Amino acid sequence: MGKIRVRDLATFSPDRMAKVAVASTPRVQLDLYCVGPGQSQKAHTHADLDKIYYVLEGAGRFSSGGATETLGAGEALVAPAGVEHGLDNPGPDRLLVLVVVAPPPSH
Amino acid sequence: MGKIRVRDLATFSPDRMAKVAVASTPRVQLDLYCVGPGQSQKAHTHADLDKIYYVLEGAGRFSSGGATETLGAGEALVAPAGVEHGLDNPGPDRLLVLVVVAPPPSH
Repeated sequence: MGKIRVRDLATFSPDRMAKVAVASTPRVQLDLYCVGPGQSQKAHTHADLDKIYYVLEGAGRFSSGGATETLGAGEALVAPAGVEHGLDNPGPDRLLVLVVVAPPPSH
Repeated sequence: MGKIRVRDLATFSPDRMAKVAVASTPRVQLDLYCVGPGQSQKAHTHADLDKIYYVLEGAGRFSSGGATETLGAGEALVAPAGVEHGLDNPGPDRLLVLVVVAPPPSH
């Protein structure tokens, strides 16, 4: 298992936020969310997995448990199991987010 | 639980690599490794936790399972449970690494 050039995996879709798989183990998964201006992930809740967002580029509005925060590069937010969370990119820049998911949804 | 300014948590020690806790849930932990030039984390193995490195700044040599890779900003490496892993910063720059650990060591 070699090194992963995470930034090179970024791919944006004109239609909606792109979710790119970066790495996965039995215990945790790393995704890259590529969120164009005006794109979003609707608020939703997972019963039994925790998520941590870390913004790589751009800025976006992130909600977790009813509170909304604007996060920029180098900032993180936790969305624990059972807590409603979502995000949107008001623009004008692209938003690139590293997302930790534990455990991986398929496990 | 509000946003976390991860870069602001960086703290370097003259003596050895500093490990800073960023966030923790029952399923996963996020740490920040602040590795000065010449500093390292010796190769070691965890029986039952997976680790993912993501380099934020600088560059370093990372080993996982016998292979050594030089990682720079935006690059990641997985060290699954049972696989020996470690890192060192040959310098001259500081190395800042986001480290995903699942599950948290204390759980």
